[in-house]
Amino acid sequence: MKKKIIEIDLTEKHIASLYAPDEFKMLGGRGLTSTIISREVKPSCHPLSADNMMVIAPGLLAGTVLSSSNRLSAGAKSPLTGGIKESNAGGNVAFKLGRLGIQAVKIKGKPVDGNALVGIKIDRKGVQFEDLSFLKGCRVYEAAERLFKKFGKRAGFIITGPAGEMKMPAACLSVTDPEGEPCRNLGRGGLGAVMGSKGIKAIIVDDGGIDTTHDSAKEKKKTIIKKFAGMLREHPVTGEKFPKYGTAMTLSAVNSLGALPTRNFRQGNFERAVAIGAEALHDTIVRRGGVHAHACMPGCVIRCSNKYVDENGDAVVGSLEYETLCLLGSNIGLADLDQVAHLNRLCNEIGIDTMEIGTAMGVLAEAGVVEFGDFEGIKEIVEAVGNGTPMGRLLGAGAAVCGKVWGVERVPVVKSQGMAAYDPRAIKGIGVTYAMSPMGADHTAGNAITLAVDHLDPAVQLEPMRDLNLKTMVLDSLGLCVFTGRVSLEQPQLIQEICMAYFGEITTFDDLMKVAGSCLKAEKEFNEQAGLSRLHNRIPDFMLKEKLAPHHSVFDIPDKELDRFYDF
Amino acid sequence: MKKKIIEIDLTEKHIASLYAPDEFKMLGGRGLTSTIISREVKPSCHPLSADNMMVIAPGLLAGTVLSSSNRLSAGAKSPLTGGIKESNAGGNVAFKLGRLGIQAVKIKGKPVDGNALVGIKIDRKGVQFEDLSFLKGCRVYEAAERLFKKFGKRAGFIITGPAGEMKMPAACLSVTDPEGEPCRNLGRGGLGAVMGSKGIKAIIVDDGGIDTTHDSAKEKKKTIIKKFAGMLREHPVTGEKFPKYGTAMTLSAVNSLGALPTRNFRQGNFERAVAIGAEALHDTIVRRGGVHAHACMPGCVIRCSNKYVDENGDAVVGSLEYETLCLLGSNIGLADLDQVAHLNRLCNEIGIDTMEIGTAMGVLAEAGVVEFGDFEGIKEIVEAVGNGTPMGRLLGAGAAVCGKVWGVERVPVVKSQGMAAYDPRAIKGIGVTYAMSPMGADHTAGNAITLAVDHLDPAVQLEPMRDLNLKTMVLDSLGLCVFTGRVSLEQPQLIQEICMAYFGEITTFDDLMKVAGSCLKAEKEFNEQAGLSRLHNRIPDFMLKEKLAPHHSVFDIPDKELDRFYDF
Repeated sequence: MKKKIIEIDLTEKHIASLYAPDEFKMLGGRGLTSTIISREVKPSCHPLSADNMMVIAPGLLAGTVLSSSNRLSAGAKSPLTGGIKESNAGGNVAFKLGRLGIQAVKIKGKPVDGNALVGIKIDRKGVQFEDLSFLKGCRVYEAAERLFKKFGKRAGFIITGPAGEMKMPAACLSVTDPEGEPCRNLGRGGLGAVMGSKGIKAIIVDDGGIDTTHDSAKEKKKTIIKKFAGMLREHPVTGEKFPKYGTAMTLSAVNSLGALPTRNFRQGNFERAVAIGAEALHDTIVRRGGVHAHACMPGCVIRCSNKYVDENGDAVVGSLEYETLCLLGSNIGLADLDQVAHLNRLCNEIGIDTMEIGTAMGVLAEAGVVEFGDFEGIKEIVEAVGNGTPMGRLLGAGAAVCGKVWGVERVPVVKSQGMAAYDPRAIKGIGVTYAMSPMGADHTAGNAITLAVDHLDPAVQLEPMRDLNLKTMVLDSLGLCVFTGRVSLEQPQLIQEICMAYFGEITTFDDLMKVAGSCLKAEKEFNEQAGLSRLHNRIPDFMLKEKLAPHHSVFDIPDKELDRFYDF
Repeated sequence: MKKKIIEIDLTEKHIASLYAPDEFKMLGGRGLTSTIISREVKPSCHPLSADNMMVIAPGLLAGTVLSSSNRLSAGAKSPLTGGIKESNAGGNVAFKLGRLGIQAVKIKGKPVDGNALVGIKIDRKGVQFEDLSFLKGCRVYEAAERLFKKFGKRAGFIITGPAGEMKMPAACLSVTDPEGEPCRNLGRGGLGAVMGSKGIKAIIVDDGGIDTTHDSAKEKKKTIIKKFAGMLREHPVTGEKFPKYGTAMTLSAVNSLGALPTRNFRQGNFERAVAIGAEALHDTIVRRGGVHAHACMPGCVIRCSNKYVDENGDAVVGSLEYETLCLLGSNIGLADLDQVAHLNRLCNEIGIDTMEIGTAMGVLAEAGVVEFGDFEGIKEIVEAVGNGTPMGRLLGAGAAVCGKVWGVERVPVVKSQGMAAYDPRAIKGIGVTYAMSPMGADHTAGNAITLAVDHLDPAVQLEPMRDLNLKTMVLDSLGLCVFTGRVSLEQPQLIQEICMAYFGEITTFDDLMKVAGSCLKAEKEFNEQAGLSRLHNRIPDFMLKEKLAPHHSVFDIPDKELDRFYDF
């Protein structure tokens, strides 16, 4: 089946379905969103203008039942960073898009009627606009419920929450998981605001009626599916730790490394880390009858996701992840799983990035607007985001804006994006990603925690981090979850076998790395044209001076060393 | 008398008084603040950190009674733009500093006790710290009153208002005028926040007891003082229009040119411009017994300032100026002098830039937060600035932040600074200054309105605007008001005569232009190091596309042409 690109022009109310050009053959996910945006979006455009484009692209392997291969990417010029952005998530939409043979959905323009609220429905019959005005201002979970009612249980959704409708720079996009909970977030960089600026409340994807029985490569695929799943199951991390503990297992590791953001990155240890750690989470879920070892996308054998429930066993949020446990936990002085879960659900309902909210809240606490650990006070401000009050909008604009508005010096951002849950003074490699990735302070572009290096030694980070950023781009393009990395990145031959089975041609890992390199440089070039200069590729000044306990370390990878990131 | 540089380190609680180095001989005002900052401040530092430096420098002619020669400059890395900033004003402080023989006051560091509120008192006996904790949170006019009580009527003050104490990026510094009203503002770029971050509530300058009777060049000076004053008095603009109408006379001119920012830069004409124009202002002041033809600094014969009074003849604000009449008038749909004057006084009390507030309010109205023309609603938000509520802090963070927080596309800023009261689509030359000046969208760096060119022709702006930016830097360095330009810039020989009389050596206008050129390039270099890239030297995208009535013109000076600004 030759793949298709859907082109939607909202200004012209026009939809076109085109065959994907040959040159996109090896481009999926972030590789494709960034390629299209860097070619077709004017870097100086306003991110909320008709000139910006939202590109939705499943990974190249989407639609298959190869384990962990159904990640969904979305990309645009970011209202948060002002640069190019890609964010990816699990859920069931990439799988459906893959089955429909859709390689990308490009959305440009803006409805002439600024108050319109539209949906884009994609199924095997084609693509059409839907009037979703009845969902105006609707929170995400209710919106999903009403969308299921209208479009049937077979559909998957990408939903813009109230935050996105209000065009907040930290607004995310919510993707339905296999059970239909809209909890898999394209979290970072304000993509929800771009969607909101285009008046899109939801993208509805229904793969009903697709026939995949005629597949000449079926046997070849079966073999590799089985082999890959087996390898993931056998690996102690992907096969045991992840299903049991999920991403929360990272918390004690990062805490031990002294890099756990605590009270606005004042400390690298949280004295109550155990209370929000993996074992506490696992035990609570098991005791209350929640779900662990949950697959966030169809057919994933790693199953690192969970469904957190309250003491009555009622659903709170799926899934409580490490980044949220830290940034809405230790970073704002909270050490109660129920409290973090409540805030997480609230953010999901509003459609706002838990990570940016956590970092921004840390900055507000630093400014004295709220006390660290004051759950009620914190909750009130997060509620305000949903209500669009001035305070809520401030938080929804992210950590950098909060810092500017309250005159705070200690603002843990790069390219105006709040840092992920790793302090770069104690895990210095992540500082390379924060500083140099075109994505801003986004751990998903290359997470140093997986590297076997001395995290405190500034001299040994650059090369492996550059390599990791490129490898991550390869996985993101294939749509393979980064958590497969422990298996998939260790054996380049495996990726080649997967490509052979699915694409019918020999694609070496080196080939994919070359493509990834070009994409990374295209992103960098876009950012430069968008006004992000060398100084935007820097860790904030306070982290170069203020020593982080317990290691009393600063971020000290020299600028010159950082600038070698793109020497490849 | 050899001039002195005062160096204050707040961290070390140390004060030093040094003779100014010879190389500073031709540097005063902006020339000196920018030279010091570009050499001594780390461009990547946080503007509110101890590493930033506040430099106060009167112009080179300060302390003399040469007409219009007592402008005061302050400079720092700007919390608003992130680049280098200088702002200058009249008032009586530069005169006093000049008489005390002080060429610059450099303030670095930060009190270790973050809650300290200090004063810096400068008189003929030296410089010392004062405890001003009793003025914490005090509004500007009351602060001035209490400072006069403490330090005597002979003193002049630079005061940080509540906005500066709260470190708002649009906070200004207030300087006392000859009558002691703290209404001459170092308005732009958030210098008040820098002062606030250093815990300084006021700088107190007392020139009592200075003996200037022994002056060997007295006669020479007398001759040039008389000659210069005569020329200013004879010129139809500086001798007649300015004393009668003040800067408000610009309003009808800009309105006729179709460049008067109206309702967030949606139109270039305001249908009720007459109501806030120069004649209405003059007539109201005269009828009510206010003051026109007021000198904002000692010995100025132009006297373009005024004291606006209410219908009972009671003081409201001195002085109602063009930029405020437009940006807090037509730009937010207000056409009532009393309303504008009230808002102006309110901003002065809070210590916040009327221009940035006007531009930001226009953006809020665009977002629907308040209605254009709703005086009560607008007033409430400006009051909120003083109270530091989230809404107030948002406004106090300026137009760019308001635009980001409310998802507004039409945000008239360059380098995150709100534009002055000239739409660059109809006065294209000002667009060269907005875009290319290191100062951001600041008309005081080179105001195209004085140029005799076709303001709509994109091809004829660059060269004269570059020239005007350099000449303005010359005047700013001398401390000569730009309004003398119609006389002083027309006759370069005159400047040479002035320099000869005051500095005792031949300094040609060309010499001064060379110095100005070096300063401008040093500022540019600082900005580049501070992360302001080529895209920051651009007019916002919407002004390149959206046609401005009545001329239906866009800003269309090509990027390439703009970039030639620094080819000299």
